[in-house]
Amino acid sequence: MIIILKPDVTEEQIQHVVARVEELGLRAHLSRGTYRTIVGVIGDEQKVQADPLRAIPGVLEVVPVLPPYKLASREAHPQSSIIDVAGVKIGGGNLAMIAGPCAVEEPERMLRIAQMVKAAGANLFRGGAYKPRTSPYAFQGQGEEGLRILRETGDAVGMPVVTEVMDPRQIDAVDRWADMIQIGARNMQNFSLLTEVGRTRKPVLLKRGMSATITDLLMSAEYILSQGNSQVVLCERGIKGWDPATRNLYDVAAVPLVKGLSHLPIIVDPSHATGRPDLIPACALAGVAAGADGVHIEVHDCPEKAKSDGPQALLPAQYAELAAQIRKLAELFGKRISPLPEKAGS
Amino acid sequence: MIIILKPDVTEEQIQHVVARVEELGLRAHLSRGTYRTIVGVIGDEQKVQADPLRAIPGVLEVVPVLPPYKLASREAHPQSSIIDVAGVKIGGGNLAMIAGPCAVEEPERMLRIAQMVKAAGANLFRGGAYKPRTSPYAFQGQGEEGLRILRETGDAVGMPVVTEVMDPRQIDAVDRWADMIQIGARNMQNFSLLTEVGRTRKPVLLKRGMSATITDLLMSAEYILSQGNSQVVLCERGIKGWDPATRNLYDVAAVPLVKGLSHLPIIVDPSHATGRPDLIPACALAGVAAGADGVHIEVHDCPEKAKSDGPQALLPAQYAELAAQIRKLAELFGKRISPLPEKAGS
Amino acid sequence: MIIILKPDVTEEQIQHVVARVEELGLRAHLSRGTYRTIVGVIGDEQKVQADPLRAIPGVLEVVPVLPPYKLASREAHPQSSIIDVAGVKIGGGNLAMIAGPCAVEEPERMLRIAQMVKAAGANLFRGGAYKPRTSPYAFQGQGEEGLRILRETGDAVGMPVVTEVMDPRQIDAVDRWADMIQIGARNMQNFSLLTEVGRTRKPVLLKRGMSATITDLLMSAEYILSQGNSQVVLCERGIKGWDPATRNLYDVAAVPLVKGLSHLPIIVDPSHATGRPDLIPACALAGVAAGADGVHIEVHDCPEKAKSDGPQALLPAQYAELAAQIRKLAELFGKRISPLPEKAGS
Amino acid sequence: MIIILKPDVTEEQIQHVVARVEELGLRAHLSRGTYRTIVGVIGDEQKVQADPLRAIPGVLEVVPVLPPYKLASREAHPQSSIIDVAGVKIGGGNLAMIAGPCAVEEPERMLRIAQMVKAAGANLFRGGAYKPRTSPYAFQGQGEEGLRILRETGDAVGMPVVTEVMDPRQIDAVDRWADMIQIGARNMQNFSLLTEVGRTRKPVLLKRGMSATITDLLMSAEYILSQGNSQVVLCERGIKGWDPATRNLYDVAAVPLVKGLSHLPIIVDPSHATGRPDLIPACALAGVAAGADGVHIEVHDCPEKAKSDGPQALLPAQYAELAAQIRKLAELFGKRISPLPEKAGS
Repeated sequence: MIIILKPDVTEEQIQHVVARVEELGLRAHLSRGTYRTIVGVIGDEQKVQADPLRAIPGVLEVVPVLPPYKLASREAHPQSSIIDVAGVKIGGGNLAMIAGPCAVEEPERMLRIAQMVKAAGANLFRGGAYKPRTSPYAFQGQGEEGLRILRETGDAVGMPVVTEVMDPRQIDAVDRWADMIQIGARNMQNFSLLTEVGRTRKPVLLKRGMSATITDLLMSAEYILSQGNSQVVLCERGIKGWDPATRNLYDVAAVPLVKGLSHLPIIVDPSHATGRPDLIPACALAGVAAGADGVHIEVHDCPEKAKSDGPQALLPAQYAELAAQIRKLAELFGKRISPLPEKAGS
Repeated sequence: MIIILKPDVTEEQIQHVVARVEELGLRAHLSRGTYRTIVGVIGDEQKVQADPLRAIPGVLEVVPVLPPYKLASREAHPQSSIIDVAGVKIGGGNLAMIAGPCAVEEPERMLRIAQMVKAAGANLFRGGAYKPRTSPYAFQGQGEEGLRILRETGDAVGMPVVTEVMDPRQIDAVDRWADMIQIGARNMQNFSLLTEVGRTRKPVLLKRGMSATITDLLMSAEYILSQGNSQVVLCERGIKGWDPATRNLYDVAAVPLVKGLSHLPIIVDPSHATGRPDLIPACALAGVAAGADGVHIEVHDCPEKAKSDGPQALLPAQYAELAAQIRKLAELFGKRISPLPEKAGS
Repeated sequence: MIIILKPDVTEEQIQHVVARVEELGLRAHLSRGTYRTIVGVIGDEQKVQADPLRAIPGVLEVVPVLPPYKLASREAHPQSSIIDVAGVKIGGGNLAMIAGPCAVEEPERMLRIAQMVKAAGANLFRGGAYKPRTSPYAFQGQGEEGLRILRETGDAVGMPVVTEVMDPRQIDAVDRWADMIQIGARNMQNFSLLTEVGRTRKPVLLKRGMSATITDLLMSAEYILSQGNSQVVLCERGIKGWDPATRNLYDVAAVPLVKGLSHLPIIVDPSHATGRPDLIPACALAGVAAGADGVHIEVHDCPEKAKSDGPQALLPAQYAELAAQIRKLAELFGKRISPLPEKAGS
Repeated sequence: MIIILKPDVTEEQIQHVVARVEELGLRAHLSRGTYRTIVGVIGDEQKVQADPLRAIPGVLEVVPVLPPYKLASREAHPQSSIIDVAGVKIGGGNLAMIAGPCAVEEPERMLRIAQMVKAAGANLFRGGAYKPRTSPYAFQGQGEEGLRILRETGDAVGMPVVTEVMDPRQIDAVDRWADMIQIGARNMQNFSLLTEVGRTRKPVLLKRGMSATITDLLMSAEYILSQGNSQVVLCERGIKGWDPATRNLYDVAAVPLVKGLSHLPIIVDPSHATGRPDLIPACALAGVAAGADGVHIEVHDCPEKAKSDGPQALLPAQYAELAAQIRKLAELFGKRISPLPEKAGS
């Protein structure tokens, strides 16, 4: 950590800054330049990053030198993590292919969609039982009944299932019925929820918030990891952008950026990132080419009747065509779509 | 609602769109232009805004004509609402002056700060017992003990108190101890929390999310209102910006924008909006000049030892000077800082 | 300047970094921490800010300690500058009230609008002869004929005039006819244009670019100042935002931020910042309350027939009402609307 | 075009709107809904998009139905354009591989770099003779001498050359020496420059501005096309983002978005988009997978001594490795790196 002092700092203020740093158990290394004096803080700065050093009189700015996360960092854990979701591997050359409708639908439709995406190559089935909706008047999900339908569909076709949790009070039920727990973008900094999910031992799919930096995303992962749950998969799903042409702004550079900073797998979700079926295939391929460990795509067999987010769903045939291209791309890069576990399935 | 059809739409698709609109209980009014056909949807479009009309084959775009919120809209409620927080009025020419430390501190310091901000003109005392912190290793607040300290401080000086809730499981306690419940920016779209807070009858201070449009903010207010709690005060606290010079980007235009669209009061929080004490006074005055119904400012008597967000706190003397300027500005616009209730206080 | 080295930097790389720094005429001060080594660069870092130090092997990051501008900085010039535009002062407590139509219109209309804004209290008359239009098919301005009309209108009512230049080849004409030269937001980083305008001795109104940080804005001012023209007035006119409710995002915090960093005056332009007449008055008042040295507003007596940007113009009566409020606000802060020079005008 | 009227619009205002629309040579089609009245404008709305219809009393909003560009639209020109740069094809399955240093360097270094990128597979050589630099104190390019060096280098190795123009007064020289003229991001809305470049018959590489929507980008292309120069290649090079981890935000979705809306080729520039060599390869591959018609990358054999932008350059060996991957990826999608013309070269 480096503390830059103001041009008009007094000697007394400098000594006070040094004293505060030492009070916090670190050493201060003073460097008096021609125009500014700087204080190098020597020791484990992560212990003091939350301390209000910038509020000390005479301090102009505090520049951290270490990232604020530890468990999520590649520096602490150089090898890429591989997460196992009921037998489906994510990371280390294994691609997740998560597909399914936005919200859990009626059982027959769920089964139909699941069969189609499985045939296309998907290895994880998704569907929301609890739906975060901007409008209180919109469909809010089927709740625990939806969880049951999702589970039964997954069991029927032999695919592990992933579903979103929005409230700490839903965690027990989601943990019971699902193989992977999703934290949605709007809850990426719902710290109560992160802490509670960290106390389960289920793999977590953590979606990046709409205005979250990569550091923010990794700090949210750190919340989960710090509770003892090391099974975290990150997801780039589009951030807030200012071109109304797309729903969000797909930040594909997040993929190599995360890979450099962290050992956790990261997948992409071009459905939410673009909100437009005509852009999803190109963006999915871009994500895989950038090194993503998987692709999350919403698929529905009749988007105009979907309970939620129909306008951004691919049709099953479109998904099958895309999955075939992803497979070839993966092979080109020496990767593979993670196979379903043998024992599973119908 | 207006449905714009694709240039190559077929007659059959047009008839299907019309049929779908009528199925939803509305009327369709076709307008065939030279280059595009459009369908005007006549009736209460708010019933169908969540329906996936854009997913119907042949549809290029769906343009809503009405705002998606009702209870929060000025169209439905032309007169400006005045919210009463234990005797302190907000809105309709009455300014809230919310002040206090970021996090609840030890009782003696709380009392000292409360006495100073009250003397300066503050009429609501704040402090966080539950703190949403980016880092799992940072101070997370004193919890229910903090609520008790806050309550006792408020009672001692005769100021109503406001504090943040982060988790549905904290609502009972916060409702018991505080006079106003704050929803923080990171939870503005925590829909479970909004729904639960809407079931209390306490005034709510709803902070704008970092990537929330004004429509998003009003939809979150609608969640609370739709549960029967009409006591909502909005707060502009800075949104995500790309200039690292300030913590957030202070969107002062949100004030007149909200006033045009909604009857709910809106206050400003220049502490979080800028993150810099040197910018807070100018931005607070700007907010009042723009028509805000109050100002939320963090004040601490020793920022370098604050448990949270010290670097953005004003010193009590700085706050007193600013409050004096706000008072004059309010008078110029025919408003007043809302007085404390007579019966209250020591 | 501080150079942060990579965790795995070698001793040889460290010595190479030190050697490079010394080659550039500065001194290097090494600080070996527990987790990172940092190099403090001692001397005039502004000499080397453009050098590719971050490209040296082993370097993780380069953190500048000084701002990259000199002539524009308050550190170099502590007293606030006052710019004189043909007798109208801007800065140091004197407010500019720039008003007029977006584009120069026909002479009769120009005279009518000028008389009305002068009566309301405006002290600088504006109108564009060269118009930067997003569409090649839109009205592009009247060119030199427009400059002549603007000049004659200003002379007729006794107001100095300001107009935009878009191309180095227009500078001679604009310098001849106008009292102040405007650089528009889209040209804020048109460095050829900045350099040429810096060679004139006319006051310059430099508008902030839509994606310009405050540092970028001050660097563009530095271009003009470095050519010997010290008469620069900055203008906040809204930056790129993601809420479609307003045309741009009005960054009122830029006003106190610039005042801390620079001695140059800064005014606000709520017309372009919001694009909505219903928001202009509140945002203009907010700017003045935040400390702006003036307000730039588009006024037209028949917006629906304006040659450019009609939908964001105020009517003369609306402008008069706003100007009266600005006058009272200025007085509250011990400032004044700068008077027109006595000799000027009819 | 659809005109949405205010809820309290009067009958007289409605008639006035209709009259104005008819005055402009179009037909108005009124649709009176339950809550709002809308006016469908029938005819060629592109004639009236610049007219201030939103300023007419009673109008709430104006929603365009057609894009504001014509010549650049795929609707007007369904087949993808192929641009020929001195024998190197761009578009229609032919990839441009533009490589070279940011600024033109001394002749020996230029030759060395050119030979290396050519060997790796590059087909267009780049280098800036006129450099837009944020700081007036930074190296501004070698000017016409730089153009000459670039030309001679290109001729020596047999590669067409591309270089940036910043000022209308430089166009003659650039047109004389270069095979393709680049408009940089900061000049994307320098309309004078666009118009002048449109009057040449040289292929133009038009970079997207940092805060330009895709519509803005296509409107800037329209400026060039409307002057008779149809040889335009677009370039996504990163837009303004709020995560300081990367220099800009790489908007890879722009590639399929532009391909849907326009017939013009679009390439990507991951060097400027990320500003970080560690992210460039992944982002380049992502761009090609998303359908880009080429890749623009800065390459330097000694980045720490580069005259400009060294920290974001790839080393020649890194470039060669990346180019090999791009070649394989192109083949997977049935494309090819465009070959150099046979007659050219050393």
